[in-house]
Amino acid sequence: MIFVQSNDNDFDVKFEELLGRGKMDIAHVSAIVGDIIEDIKTDKNKALKSHIAKFDNWTPKSDEDLKITTESMKTAYENIDEALKDSLHLAYDRIKAYHEKQKPKSWFDTEENGTILGQKVTPVDSAGLYIPGGKAAYPSSLLMNVIPAQVAGVENIIVCTPTPDNEPNELLLAACHLCGVSEVYKVGGASAIAALAYGTETIPKVDVITGPGNIFVATAKKMVFGEVNIDMIAGPSEIGILADESANANHLAIDLLSQAEHDEMASSILITPSQKLADAVKIEIESWLTKLPRQKIARKSIEERGAIIVTQTMDEAIELMNKIAPEHLEVATMSPFELLPYIKHAGAIFLGHNTPEAIGDYVAGPNHTLPTGGTAKFYSPLGVENFMKKSSIISFSSAAINEIGQECALIANTEGLTAHEQSVRVRLK
Amino acid sequence: MIFVQSNDNDFDVKFEELLGRGKMDIAHVSAIVGDIIEDIKTDKNKALKSHIAKFDNWTPKSDEDLKITTESMKTAYENIDEALKDSLHLAYDRIKAYHEKQKPKSWFDTEENGTILGQKVTPVDSAGLYIPGGKAAYPSSLLMNVIPAQVAGVENIIVCTPTPDNEPNELLLAACHLCGVSEVYKVGGASAIAALAYGTETIPKVDVITGPGNIFVATAKKMVFGEVNIDMIAGPSEIGILADESANANHLAIDLLSQAEHDEMASSILITPSQKLADAVKIEIESWLTKLPRQKIARKSIEERGAIIVTQTMDEAIELMNKIAPEHLEVATMSPFELLPYIKHAGAIFLGHNTPEAIGDYVAGPNHTLPTGGTAKFYSPLGVENFMKKSSIISFSSAAINEIGQECALIANTEGLTAHEQSVRVRLK
Repeated sequence: MIFVQSNDNDFDVKFEELLGRGKMDIAHVSAIVGDIIEDIKTDKNKALKSHIAKFDNWTPKSDEDLKITTESMKTAYENIDEALKDSLHLAYDRIKAYHEKQKPKSWFDTEENGTILGQKVTPVDSAGLYIPGGKAAYPSSLLMNVIPAQVAGVENIIVCTPTPDNEPNELLLAACHLCGVSEVYKVGGASAIAALAYGTETIPKVDVITGPGNIFVATAKKMVFGEVNIDMIAGPSEIGILADESANANHLAIDLLSQAEHDEMASSILITPSQKLADAVKIEIESWLTKLPRQKIARKSIEERGAIIVTQTMDEAIELMNKIAPEHLEVATMSPFELLPYIKHAGAIFLGHNTPEAIGDYVAGPNHTLPTGGTAKFYSPLGVENFMKKSSIISFSSAAINEIGQECALIANTEGLTAHEQSVRVRLK
Repeated sequence: MIFVQSNDNDFDVKFEELLGRGKMDIAHVSAIVGDIIEDIKTDKNKALKSHIAKFDNWTPKSDEDLKITTESMKTAYENIDEALKDSLHLAYDRIKAYHEKQKPKSWFDTEENGTILGQKVTPVDSAGLYIPGGKAAYPSSLLMNVIPAQVAGVENIIVCTPTPDNEPNELLLAACHLCGVSEVYKVGGASAIAALAYGTETIPKVDVITGPGNIFVATAKKMVFGEVNIDMIAGPSEIGILADESANANHLAIDLLSQAEHDEMASSILITPSQKLADAVKIEIESWLTKLPRQKIARKSIEERGAIIVTQTMDEAIELMNKIAPEHLEVATMSPFELLPYIKHAGAIFLGHNTPEAIGDYVAGPNHTLPTGGTAKFYSPLGVENFMKKSSIISFSSAAINEIGQECALIANTEGLTAHEQSVRVRLK
């Protein structure tokens, strides 16, 4: 773990190194992923089956075998216990309520000369959601991808998830039933992304692909971008915490570890002007670590990619955090909303001592699919808008085009586009 | 030109072929563009200068030489005639007014237990706008890219444009002055995109790159996606027209040609249930063609990529048009707004007999940078949102986390993430 003061001599070097961490180097998998995509484009289902045999250790006997039955989803749902069912329904309802508030509306405006200008917002026809499978299959990922697509009004929602040894994750199936998803395919990795982007005999081509995944999935998403739209290219998870002395060191330590337990590549960073808090959090991390089932992963993540930075002031702490642009940002200070105006870049901002990042992973309502690796500087959380697109609306009356047609024709003429010019002039009186 | 009836025997084949037209095959330029990007990443300004010598036929003598002076922009502006100045100002004001209406707002909602959920919308720090140069340098492209970035509130706006023979396009310089842009670099093609994505000694790294360009520019934008955000990957321009017998054949012909004159690869498609209108438009196209300075380009475009399709009904015409998802769609019918609910996919929709597509290219207000090649199924017009991003806002009181914390902890536990679980449990009373 980096444990530093911002006025250390070598701080800038260490901070630069920290900023570079989130970068994913996809160059070394590009060739492999490119081959997988070409394979699926050419041989479709046949290629899918051979990839499944290779990567997931089972061989689909027929095209139908690629699909998970709705009966098995229903059974899986019925088999989970009531408390979990209630919890997932609570999560579903809260996530849905939040995303409905986020849904963009069509709008228009009129001018008295007969002009109408506006924007029509419509859902895409079909969306492909990629959900990692096997042991790391998270029902929450399904909810977070399905619900914005449903709120957007997407007619065809298609889920792909790998099923190693042909054993679907029962929790994921239960969540599919709960969400009302009926089209789920047992296909994973770059093959799934290619199948969704280009279509096969069984899997329909979609317009938008979203969802988390490893570097192969991320690379495939980048490669098919343009053929379809994608949400973002995401890397390992991160948390940044801004805190002052009012924070509880024990709470911050477990919050940092909640990212660290995800992945050895995950990154957990505390920035605070309080040396006392910094020291206390360091001790609490060690104390928590020994109690965690995923201690090994969390320890490696904290040791290799954790950081505690002590600054001179809170302003300086915020400035550094804006440079990091973390996926998750906790503001654990006495008056967190006072700092909000100065926070420029973060995927999600958790304000106050009672808002651990994990509450946003499951039940708060906002999406847990967030930009990583500093990309919060330009990407947004996954949301309803990822499943919608806009059309400009333009309508002119005869009076309206007479009012500004000359100016339009002049610019067109100046650009040397006389058919443009004439298409306006023929309508002028 | 394809001139067909939708009930012809071979219609489906011809229509499929037409749908395939807009696809750009970037595979054959990927290697070249990849090398250019690597070059810029490694050698920065040195590489830029050698690319300029190679592609633009002049050699910058110093780093400062890469930049266009604000004085030369001011002079260019002063040298254009008053009528054009007024027209450009009219365009600027109207485009700005439209984009201001489009600007998303931060929002939040509260629950009575002390929960605050919302979304904070902020501009990106810096945007790089690519504007093609030389003879095809269009001041309108500059306005359409700069204004949404300005309305978004982007602090650093950087323009790159190639200047063959070191001769900047004076109109473009004038437009830069008019828009208040001060940072313009004489760099074009894939090199410019790489410079904006990774930064050089002179050109700052940006967060978002937008703007039109040839296949090299489009490919470079795709390759740097993830390092920065981009608007879209755009191909040749298109127009689709839905019309009935109330339309003026002469007007529709010049509207179709206004796309055709752009580029031999541009595509102009009329779909109508009226055989009479279809026949008349065909004749009017020929009559207009002989009058156009850009006849050669327009004729090739119309012949190789134009289409007139006669359907049985208007419903069928709309259905076909939704499959095409054209960049520009004119609805030249008696009651165009009646059809609007059924139009699913188009970059911009121009309604009524007095709304030629060209009015939207310059002065109407909406953006003229639109999704092409069927990508209107999932991309939106360039807009203010391309220069902004969102952060989720989550704040829980002690009462609020007590209300749903158990459910959250249970899901976390079920997913095997016990640090997540504990980070919630430690806050429960």
